[in-house]
Amino acid sequence: MKVGIIGANGYSGAELIRILKQHPEVELSFLGSHSTSGTLITEQYPHLEGISECRLEEMNVDDILGRADLFFFATPSGVAKNHVHRFVDEEIPCIDLSGDHRLKDSRLYDKWYKYSSAPTSVLQKSTYGLPELFREDIKNATLIANPGCYPTATLIGLAPLLKNNLVHLNSIIIDGKSGVTGAGRKASMGTHYCEVNENVKAYKLGNHQHIPEMEQVIQTYTHSDATITFTPHLVPMSRGIMCTIYCDLAQSLSTKDALELYHEFYRKEYFVRIRQENQWPATKEVYSSNYCDLGIAVDERTNRITIVSVIDNVMKGASGQAVQNMNIINGWNEQTGLKITPVYP
Amino acid sequence: MKVGIIGANGYSGAELIRILKQHPEVELSFLGSHSTSGTLITEQYPHLEGISECRLEEMNVDDILGRADLFFFATPSGVAKNHVHRFVDEEIPCIDLSGDHRLKDSRLYDKWYKYSSAPTSVLQKSTYGLPELFREDIKNATLIANPGCYPTATLIGLAPLLKNNLVHLNSIIIDGKSGVTGAGRKASMGTHYCEVNENVKAYKLGNHQHIPEMEQVIQTYTHSDATITFTPHLVPMSRGIMCTIYCDLAQSLSTKDALELYHEFYRKEYFVRIRQENQWPATKEVYSSNYCDLGIAVDERTNRITIVSVIDNVMKGASGQAVQNMNIINGWNEQTGLKITPVYP
Amino acid sequence: MKVGIIGANGYSGAELIRILKQHPEVELSFLGSHSTSGTLITEQYPHLEGISECRLEEMNVDDILGRADLFFFATPSGVAKNHVHRFVDEEIPCIDLSGDHRLKDSRLYDKWYKYSSAPTSVLQKSTYGLPELFREDIKNATLIANPGCYPTATLIGLAPLLKNNLVHLNSIIIDGKSGVTGAGRKASMGTHYCEVNENVKAYKLGNHQHIPEMEQVIQTYTHSDATITFTPHLVPMSRGIMCTIYCDLAQSLSTKDALELYHEFYRKEYFVRIRQENQWPATKEVYSSNYCDLGIAVDERTNRITIVSVIDNVMKGASGQAVQNMNIINGWNEQTGLKITPVYP
Amino acid sequence: MKVGIIGANGYSGAELIRILKQHPEVELSFLGSHSTSGTLITEQYPHLEGISECRLEEMNVDDILGRADLFFFATPSGVAKNHVHRFVDEEIPCIDLSGDHRLKDSRLYDKWYKYSSAPTSVLQKSTYGLPELFREDIKNATLIANPGCYPTATLIGLAPLLKNNLVHLNSIIIDGKSGVTGAGRKASMGTHYCEVNENVKAYKLGNHQHIPEMEQVIQTYTHSDATITFTPHLVPMSRGIMCTIYCDLAQSLSTKDALELYHEFYRKEYFVRIRQENQWPATKEVYSSNYCDLGIAVDERTNRITIVSVIDNVMKGASGQAVQNMNIINGWNEQTGLKITPVYP
Repeated sequence: MKVGIIGANGYSGAELIRILKQHPEVELSFLGSHSTSGTLITEQYPHLEGISECRLEEMNVDDILGRADLFFFATPSGVAKNHVHRFVDEEIPCIDLSGDHRLKDSRLYDKWYKYSSAPTSVLQKSTYGLPELFREDIKNATLIANPGCYPTATLIGLAPLLKNNLVHLNSIIIDGKSGVTGAGRKASMGTHYCEVNENVKAYKLGNHQHIPEMEQVIQTYTHSDATITFTPHLVPMSRGIMCTIYCDLAQSLSTKDALELYHEFYRKEYFVRIRQENQWPATKEVYSSNYCDLGIAVDERTNRITIVSVIDNVMKGASGQAVQNMNIINGWNEQTGLKITPVYP
Repeated sequence: MKVGIIGANGYSGAELIRILKQHPEVELSFLGSHSTSGTLITEQYPHLEGISECRLEEMNVDDILGRADLFFFATPSGVAKNHVHRFVDEEIPCIDLSGDHRLKDSRLYDKWYKYSSAPTSVLQKSTYGLPELFREDIKNATLIANPGCYPTATLIGLAPLLKNNLVHLNSIIIDGKSGVTGAGRKASMGTHYCEVNENVKAYKLGNHQHIPEMEQVIQTYTHSDATITFTPHLVPMSRGIMCTIYCDLAQSLSTKDALELYHEFYRKEYFVRIRQENQWPATKEVYSSNYCDLGIAVDERTNRITIVSVIDNVMKGASGQAVQNMNIINGWNEQTGLKITPVYP
Repeated sequence: MKVGIIGANGYSGAELIRILKQHPEVELSFLGSHSTSGTLITEQYPHLEGISECRLEEMNVDDILGRADLFFFATPSGVAKNHVHRFVDEEIPCIDLSGDHRLKDSRLYDKWYKYSSAPTSVLQKSTYGLPELFREDIKNATLIANPGCYPTATLIGLAPLLKNNLVHLNSIIIDGKSGVTGAGRKASMGTHYCEVNENVKAYKLGNHQHIPEMEQVIQTYTHSDATITFTPHLVPMSRGIMCTIYCDLAQSLSTKDALELYHEFYRKEYFVRIRQENQWPATKEVYSSNYCDLGIAVDERTNRITIVSVIDNVMKGASGQAVQNMNIINGWNEQTGLKITPVYP
Repeated sequence: MKVGIIGANGYSGAELIRILKQHPEVELSFLGSHSTSGTLITEQYPHLEGISECRLEEMNVDDILGRADLFFFATPSGVAKNHVHRFVDEEIPCIDLSGDHRLKDSRLYDKWYKYSSAPTSVLQKSTYGLPELFREDIKNATLIANPGCYPTATLIGLAPLLKNNLVHLNSIIIDGKSGVTGAGRKASMGTHYCEVNENVKAYKLGNHQHIPEMEQVIQTYTHSDATITFTPHLVPMSRGIMCTIYCDLAQSLSTKDALELYHEFYRKEYFVRIRQENQWPATKEVYSSNYCDLGIAVDERTNRITIVSVIDNVMKGASGQAVQNMNIINGWNEQTGLKITPVYP
């Protein structure tokens, strides 16, 4: 099958190339990039020398519709919304790694993204591509809204509790810590080495666009409204996200009970791994892989549960999950091309 | 005035030397170290060449009582408790940077530190050395329990809210992020470069010894009990602590109101700086200095307040605060030797 | 084929597991570790959960001879020399990642390693496992001395010049920069995060044990003696080695000529990649892969050539090259299990 | 005395503010910045809150000539050359931290900087501000060309050998390793955290503009021509430069002899520290200070001497040295405001 990447010059694009070059079912037939069109991908990413000789091309929808059987949009938020409808009209499967098709209520785009949404009809057709929670929906989807990095770590961390009504929904507090790849490859003061190195910084308190995304999924999943607190932080590393999630328990539960519940819930999930009691996952333990690792603790003093959830934001938080979705859509083994051992240390 | 450092070979010890060599009122008369006694301090810390030519000496209480007019204990927790009573008996002022004299209830040492406490009579004599909260007590103290790094950042972040009964005490959640100096200079797998670099890790969930310390101070300060949640994380940097503090508001409050309250509360505090609305402090902005920088946000959606508090854990979280306490005890200007501009970047 | 790893608990051991679990021709049948025997590999390396369920075992030669058809020694230098002869006697192929079988002259071990060598007869049987230079010898070898990390980068960088007698052998100066994995997983002051982070340090000037190794290979390869200068440096990163190599040219040569020569020399080598004129490889561009990337510049002002050579020290500098050697010994495609795209960024 | 900083918004500018706010003889009377004029310095650098309340101003020469008694140009190369002559005409002392006034031969600017030089008459009036080598000239200077970071580390490392004709001048090879502050605060792909972190990269091989600067000083100092090799590398840290310098000895010399020579040569130099035999300076050991630390080794096998020289590039390599020059010009104690203990770790 031929696949194309639109926005191939960013970090998610490069990661898609890394995965797809080892994927037995697909062939890369199109790499699109507005800013670097005409150059070889190896001019942008010398590490791909000998691996991909593709040339980046200008993205003109009319020209590219026939170039692939499935497209990944690895563009910054605000781009895909203008183009995806054309692919949808032609029933060409698209997986949008940006935020443009995740929210169902178009007014939320005005509020949280500060721009107008994709056409409402397209929003309605999109399927939220978190396989561990919505696999059945994904199987029949044409347009996948690939989840945000923080929501992926958070929702996998929360799902067993949500499904069993074990926590007070309005008590959920998520403290996120992200590596710098989350900010994309574009040069800015905020990603300058000397501003990030030996530094931890909080940002977008109370107004990060992943808040409505998480609230929507919690609503879909529990059929109850939730208003959550989420604080993202930038930490001095390239890859990796940790979400430390705090919830008030709605009923008494021991750590052992909680661990059993999680093990049962994720029994068949290859990409979810659960640490033993008093063991905590570290972001490096999933580095370059598609795993989501979880650690769980109930504090009986406070009747609160804390979940520590880690992913590689470029993989399970973006490109790896996108390929997982592609596998599901096509009826392939979900792990195809994704059985990548974390690189450690 | 002659001052001595016991445990001069650790990071807090070296930082005390950095500060005290520029302090106009004191002279370093004794550097004690059990593990490296007999060596020059420059053999342990070549960066001190030309700055201090002292030799590290074995610490034998009988021999050293007369060697200084004030002693800093920069030893790991579990050491000072065995020696400080001798100094107290002689009315020689001591500032203990370890946790050994912070908790008033000796049973808490068995539970949280896993060892028996200092003599109860000595615990009762100690004063908790957080000047911004307890300056008057410190003025007359002989034995100072220098606060822990996480409690320093947290309690300065919380005090204006506590003083005004603005938050539900049992709702307090503290998500801490620390650089690796917090673990001391001793080599271990947990401080190995390759295990920490490009990694974030949670540790000691629900059982960190700073929990009872913070609860005790909140109790002292508000005369109400509090049971808090605290999760520390190790982030890949050497210095710096950020505490992100979440509380449910007990009454309605805007961010502007909160900022005004903080400005008023800390109006006379040189070492506390408050960011404007929507500005968040980063740990690097206090690097190598004695500042505690705060950012405040009220989220009206959730009726929760979030405080971001940063310090340099080796300075305001340890040695800088210890010198601040020394200045107060001696009636010197509190800023003496501590007007150090953060090194940036 | 069954393979065993002795010293599986170190970084090279863990990397061998990462590679071999994806290798279609082998099965891991034995993981030996003296210090952690009895534990699961996942207790030492949680990132391997779901990937390897092996238990580490005590290494007793009598017991393990029959446990595998080929053994990797991923032990620190000074261990393999005491055991390898037993395997050699039984004609069981061994690949020694340590330095114990690299030098042919046993007296060099006394001088540079400060311990006595493996039995001379065993030294004589060993083959230096640098495939790009000695592939034919490796094909028939039973005991492989896997090259050191610095020598791998250096010798691949130098070979085209050496083969064509283009440089003065005594003018060779190698400035090496290594990540911290090169120091192994053992905790020490020298690998403590805070001592390495935001720091560059030179070490072992003029007495690093890779000096005689490089001189021996140059001698073997050119049939002339060479006395070289080599200075290793520790840089704040986990993986990666760069060797910047300076040589006086023995005859006039342009950068273009040199590049052509290198392209021709390495035309068939999958794992060697050569940058275009004025492009310089960075260590991250080979991260987690088996590539050696080269950049070449002739400075006509000084009549000197500079070669910049980078590898991932844990892969091409250790475990990747060891697997490459295993592939050659067994007549498999040399790239089997090693077509790993660098992880970037 | 009133001093002004032109280009106050860059890293050297911010570092000048850090130093000068503690300097007893001066008052900051002007902060100029083209790109951020009109903003408070604390908007650009929140770490300066409570330390400097200055507002950045547009730089218009006519307006600012009277604003200070001495000016620092902390602008990128290519700016000062257009303005300094105005100050020179008015005999207002200037210290130019950029490269614009370092080379005496104006043609070298076309070749190495790729732009035309400052007026030749101004170049002739400038004095190379390396106090350890040219203190007497500096005393009477009005226009100081503050040395480059690599040349500072290199020339202090070489001077004792040069002065005593101990090395072959054409054999000098300098392998430089720099932190990222050397690239300035401007955002670019090359300073993006993810491109620098966990990475070492060589750049500008054979064509770095510090080559003619070093050659000129060697010529001035020895009255002989030298053609040198210099390769700079970017390493993943914010501050610090190490130059590893290799020279062929012109006569036999032991390491002990060399160390004695260096100790004698730098006997009176407060800012130069020399490590004992077999001890090597690390960049962190001079972090945030004005020291230059040296390690020396003679390799009798190769008859070569290696010098390891480290500085903090923002301090001794830029702003610290600039203040040192200001002190000399004004006849103040050279160490005024610069007795800053390195921050470690």
